[in-house]
Amino acid sequence: MAFDAAKDRQFKVVGTRPRRPDGIDKVTGKAQYGADMSAPGMLHGLVLRSPHPHARIVGIDASAALDMAGVKAVVTNADLAEPEDDFYRDIKDNVLARDKALYDGHAVAAVAATSLEIALAALDRIEVEYEVLPHVTDVDAAMAPDAPVVQPGRADETVPSGHSENVTGYWQFGHGDPEGGFAKADKIVERSFKTAATHQGYIEPHACLGSMTSDGKGELWCCTQGQYMVRSTCAALLGMDASQLRVTASEIGGGFGGKTTTFIEPVALALSRKCGRPVKMVMSREEVFRATGPTASSSIDVKIGMTSDGKVTAGAATLRYQGGAFPSETVLFGAQSAFAAYDLEAVRTEGFSVLTNRPKEAAYRAPGAPMAVYAVESVVDELCQHFGLDPFEVRLKNAARKGTLSSYGPTFDEIGLVATLEAAQAHAHYSAPLGPNQGRGISCGFWFNFGGNTCVSLNVNDDGTVGVTEGNPDIGGSRASISMMAAEELGIPYEKVRTVVTDTNSLGFNDVTDGSRVTFAVGLATINAARAAKAEMCRRVAKLWGLEEDAVKWENGAVVPAGPNAGKHESMSLAEIAAIADQTGGPIAGHHETNADGAGVSFGVHICDAEVDPETGATKVLRYTVFQDAGKAVHPDYVEGQMQGGAVQGIGWALNEEYIYGDDGKLQNPGFLDYRVPVASDLPPIDTVILEIPNPGHPYGVRGVGETSIVPPLAALSNAISRAAGIRLAELPMSPPRIRAALRG
Amino acid sequence: MAFDAAKDRQFKVVGTRPRRPDGIDKVTGKAQYGADMSAPGMLHGLVLRSPHPHARIVGIDASAALDMAGVKAVVTNADLAEPEDDFYRDIKDNVLARDKALYDGHAVAAVAATSLEIALAALDRIEVEYEVLPHVTDVDAAMAPDAPVVQPGRADETVPSGHSENVTGYWQFGHGDPEGGFAKADKIVERSFKTAATHQGYIEPHACLGSMTSDGKGELWCCTQGQYMVRSTCAALLGMDASQLRVTASEIGGGFGGKTTTFIEPVALALSRKCGRPVKMVMSREEVFRATGPTASSSIDVKIGMTSDGKVTAGAATLRYQGGAFPSETVLFGAQSAFAAYDLEAVRTEGFSVLTNRPKEAAYRAPGAPMAVYAVESVVDELCQHFGLDPFEVRLKNAARKGTLSSYGPTFDEIGLVATLEAAQAHAHYSAPLGPNQGRGISCGFWFNFGGNTCVSLNVNDDGTVGVTEGNPDIGGSRASISMMAAEELGIPYEKVRTVVTDTNSLGFNDVTDGSRVTFAVGLATINAARAAKAEMCRRVAKLWGLEEDAVKWENGAVVPAGPNAGKHESMSLAEIAAIADQTGGPIAGHHETNADGAGVSFGVHICDAEVDPETGATKVLRYTVFQDAGKAVHPDYVEGQMQGGAVQGIGWALNEEYIYGDDGKLQNPGFLDYRVPVASDLPPIDTVILEIPNPGHPYGVRGVGETSIVPPLAALSNAISRAAGIRLAELPMSPPRIRAALRG
Repeated sequence: MAFDAAKDRQFKVVGTRPRRPDGIDKVTGKAQYGADMSAPGMLHGLVLRSPHPHARIVGIDASAALDMAGVKAVVTNADLAEPEDDFYRDIKDNVLARDKALYDGHAVAAVAATSLEIALAALDRIEVEYEVLPHVTDVDAAMAPDAPVVQPGRADETVPSGHSENVTGYWQFGHGDPEGGFAKADKIVERSFKTAATHQGYIEPHACLGSMTSDGKGELWCCTQGQYMVRSTCAALLGMDASQLRVTASEIGGGFGGKTTTFIEPVALALSRKCGRPVKMVMSREEVFRATGPTASSSIDVKIGMTSDGKVTAGAATLRYQGGAFPSETVLFGAQSAFAAYDLEAVRTEGFSVLTNRPKEAAYRAPGAPMAVYAVESVVDELCQHFGLDPFEVRLKNAARKGTLSSYGPTFDEIGLVATLEAAQAHAHYSAPLGPNQGRGISCGFWFNFGGNTCVSLNVNDDGTVGVTEGNPDIGGSRASISMMAAEELGIPYEKVRTVVTDTNSLGFNDVTDGSRVTFAVGLATINAARAAKAEMCRRVAKLWGLEEDAVKWENGAVVPAGPNAGKHESMSLAEIAAIADQTGGPIAGHHETNADGAGVSFGVHICDAEVDPETGATKVLRYTVFQDAGKAVHPDYVEGQMQGGAVQGIGWALNEEYIYGDDGKLQNPGFLDYRVPVASDLPPIDTVILEIPNPGHPYGVRGVGETSIVPPLAALSNAISRAAGIRLAELPMSPPRIRAALRG
Repeated sequence: MAFDAAKDRQFKVVGTRPRRPDGIDKVTGKAQYGADMSAPGMLHGLVLRSPHPHARIVGIDASAALDMAGVKAVVTNADLAEPEDDFYRDIKDNVLARDKALYDGHAVAAVAATSLEIALAALDRIEVEYEVLPHVTDVDAAMAPDAPVVQPGRADETVPSGHSENVTGYWQFGHGDPEGGFAKADKIVERSFKTAATHQGYIEPHACLGSMTSDGKGELWCCTQGQYMVRSTCAALLGMDASQLRVTASEIGGGFGGKTTTFIEPVALALSRKCGRPVKMVMSREEVFRATGPTASSSIDVKIGMTSDGKVTAGAATLRYQGGAFPSETVLFGAQSAFAAYDLEAVRTEGFSVLTNRPKEAAYRAPGAPMAVYAVESVVDELCQHFGLDPFEVRLKNAARKGTLSSYGPTFDEIGLVATLEAAQAHAHYSAPLGPNQGRGISCGFWFNFGGNTCVSLNVNDDGTVGVTEGNPDIGGSRASISMMAAEELGIPYEKVRTVVTDTNSLGFNDVTDGSRVTFAVGLATINAARAAKAEMCRRVAKLWGLEEDAVKWENGAVVPAGPNAGKHESMSLAEIAAIADQTGGPIAGHHETNADGAGVSFGVHICDAEVDPETGATKVLRYTVFQDAGKAVHPDYVEGQMQGGAVQGIGWALNEEYIYGDDGKLQNPGFLDYRVPVASDLPPIDTVILEIPNPGHPYGVRGVGETSIVPPLAALSNAISRAAGIRLAELPMSPPRIRAALRG
């Protein structure tokens, strides 16, 4: 069978806006989240956490806790298996500290008891003897040669000398001769920036229910972005085969990258194994802030040269990201994405990964990119201001396009940056008038988009409805999008399809829900699974009709005779074929397993109008428009939602959000009262413009959309504030005290 | 790839006895059964049941119940959709009575409330006005022309005239000229038998948790033998698409056929839809007895002619089964299986299906066969006694074998009856001495075994372990057997495989776990799925090695170069191939969907020694041996367990179990105190002898084993009692009062 190419295809279902499924159940809390599962005989688990940012654990005495009525088990790091590789050993040592507590809130022991009250009381009875050590939480301070060493011996061989042992990784990217490029510039701007650690701020804290059976099998229900990742990690930390652990993902109350790793899941299983009962663990908000992964804070130097007509002659950046107490590679994404929007003859970036006495960093929407792009787009804007050039003109002049050798290596295929810049420049927002103390900033953004390992099964039910089975938690409406693509391919209504996210033992391995990969990769696999089912239906009907397989074809949701046999048989619809499946060989299915490639990079452009209050230093976002190349937008509501949500998170990062550590190394704001995310009343409606440049790597032209939109707001806000108030802040967040100080300084 | 035939195959895993999985969790109750699931905001549902065996429902007034604080919904038959076909309409009218209550305990309404106590109190406040109608519970009385009519207009056109409208179906089987055959006999015995209704006696009452979401999707957790059957039924009764309802089967505390239909599941969903909250329903034991399906009670006439040297010249039987208040087809199986063990020139059976004011019959292990075979094997034994012939010699002389035209139509392929009879005859048990008041009975047994619609997915994990996904609840160790077959086929240890039973939306349609179909059909699909995965691994390795696909082969759990390339490459094991799957195309899987055929019939022979107490009439089973053709026994422990369990249920049926209805049409013994199943102290160890005659329809020679063993005990006991006490009872159960009466009569 031949299939239409995305460009020519007339879609019937894809691109429409069916009512969001699950919406009411989610907002009313009826949907089953991580903490909503229970089991008879279940115990409640709690974690004892270090009050010190850095301390040797001299001894742990749990005997008084274990003597309490209702306390069934206490576990420490020693109760977990010893994984062979660093990756899992780091997770092990993070979920329960080995011999040192490495940050304020680091898990030291866990207890399971018959009630939460008893478990809480038991935590007090676990005696931990600490030897407090010097600590470091700032990335620049941690790189200094005399800094306290968080974990000795973790630096890899690529790290240049002259730094403390806390620098564990180093990467370089680029091409051409930056020094030669800078020499051609009419103006070079070189600036240093700092950005704070921010948290994903998901509404739902981590929660799970783990149970080990007597014969060594495990069952785990948890809130995660990847049940297979949880399975692999827990199997490694429990010392069991992956096949013996079944992990089911709950509905998810937000993740944004923060649920791509594990914290309590292996601990709950270890507790359950020790006492033979199911163990439920639910984090408090304070625990989420202190001990799950925020993004890295950073220190970044950027140097860009430009000619007076706006041609960038060279760019260079040095990025230093602290990944908390364990080695991280996020700076890699920062170094790769910093200049991704530009077609440059000479560019160089380098990234340092640095240990600090902070919680182990986790992914956060387009991890590593926002701060890198913030720094670059701020400097580009400063150069535009310097030369009095239109920021769109400058970006269009230097924009990456098809055939551009990207700043991080690959040559771009079809990309939508130029079209997106042009749409933004032409939009009414860009020419709208501004009032006093108001400014307009723009910024580009970029994200790679992932593909990855993906499995889909598609089953045709005897009533002509269809079930799609996928293995990626739905964090942004993917079940609806996948159902739409299945319906599109099969020629049946959207309502006839239900897509479910299944457990690890009901479908092959799927990479985690990250990298904006799901609509692309699961969609790809779904379309291929549907095509396999269509081929099977064609075979069966051909046999019924006594024809060769290639003498029939699929058309409009039915098998019809093809070629010389056209008209010789009535068509048979999917429902008709399904109704007699048991007479033609049994149930009809299509399956597809792939390591999907060709995700297609994504670009966005944001325009932000902001007003700075000269008295208070408070910034008000007046108007905000997101322009983004979504490839084919499967369900535009969700695409717009992603664009809006990312912009809002970026605005929070730009203006208010930050981890505040005291000199004592303790987190001072582990709660939503003191860690301030934007709420509805802080924001104007976020306008969106979807551009659809088909991704040649997907049959319907889909590309990832979820992450790019968090990248531009940091610089868009900074550039707007600069133009509104005449000050350019080089540190995030641009909170009222900082702006007021800058205005007065 | 070519695969070994079952006969020649040297098995490595199949046939061994790995420790039973799940055992400890099941016996300690840790396994999650139907009642073990909960959800936040969950309500408790209870059913109001008719106190009358037959009554018109004039009106239902639930207003007082609905006025109670905590009562959230009441549903009746009118809250369910109206299915188009009789099959689902009967289930609808059984789970909630339409306009008449048809039996004592028939559900009339259901209530959901915030606590069980409130729900219970609410039942009292639902006012039902009944107009009591005459009733009938006995099958012969129900057939009489003047009997009260349970449901008018349900008789099909095949039913001969002269009966009441309660006779709804009629079937005939056989071949040859029975009258001519009887004329050749030296002796004809003609007897009438009655058997009581018996219950499957599963430990776990029906239980479920149903939840309808706001967007019309449903989630259902329940204890069932078939989650897909539950899905189809509930979808029909709720008026929703099958794809929109996800059903997950709990662990199952016994089913034996009694969980192949639905009772509370659609009611829970209807309640949930009405009030928007999850609803849990758990039956009491009394409800299980009064309102779930026991097997049919029966009235059977058998006529057999035999020559003096033991040749059966003809057989005939008339079977009358009451299926409760709704049409049933179980008598079909009785009429088919009555003479199945015999190679007869002339045989005729006819079956009447009859309505009574009793609960709708459900399947019970080899449904319909035990009573039919009981009647035939009793008469054969009487003839053996008459002629002084050895009962094994007579059965061997007349035994069905390969090529026999069976009494119900098909010609037998490879079957194991003769080998089984010979093994039993030669066994030490048969020649062991007997004491006073002791007798030895034998009986043959038969069951068809089913195949049916089956889907299996097999996924290779990156650590070289394997997950098998199947859709049939494990009622007899099938997860272990399936894992063993997967391990066998893939050449990896059993411990590396885990088989799970998944929900309806994670795998294609599977027929219910019944007909002893699962080890056969799911095993077949698993082997084929494993072969598909092996083929995929061969393709990938061939590509890695730069060879054609057919230049490699699978051998001992690894891909090796074949033919002229042998020795040119090191072999690659499954684990090695799995570890780099992401580099060779993504996850590795095999799938298989089929409507499996070739299940292969099963025969068993039982020897029973019994002693009858002449004072009390109590029968003690002294020694019991089961001989059965299992095809290839995958996990012999489980095969023996099935053989033992079936025998014990048959012994209970023979000696004690019965539904006792009073003249008022009410069930008098709805509990395990008065409905007496055999307990461990009632029984000797049940010895087992497995015969392995490979089933040509299965790659490993497997055939079903679970049901046949309940068939012989009824006659084996009757024949033993006859020989021990000189009395031949013609009614089951042969309880002490009946035996004592016969001894005195």
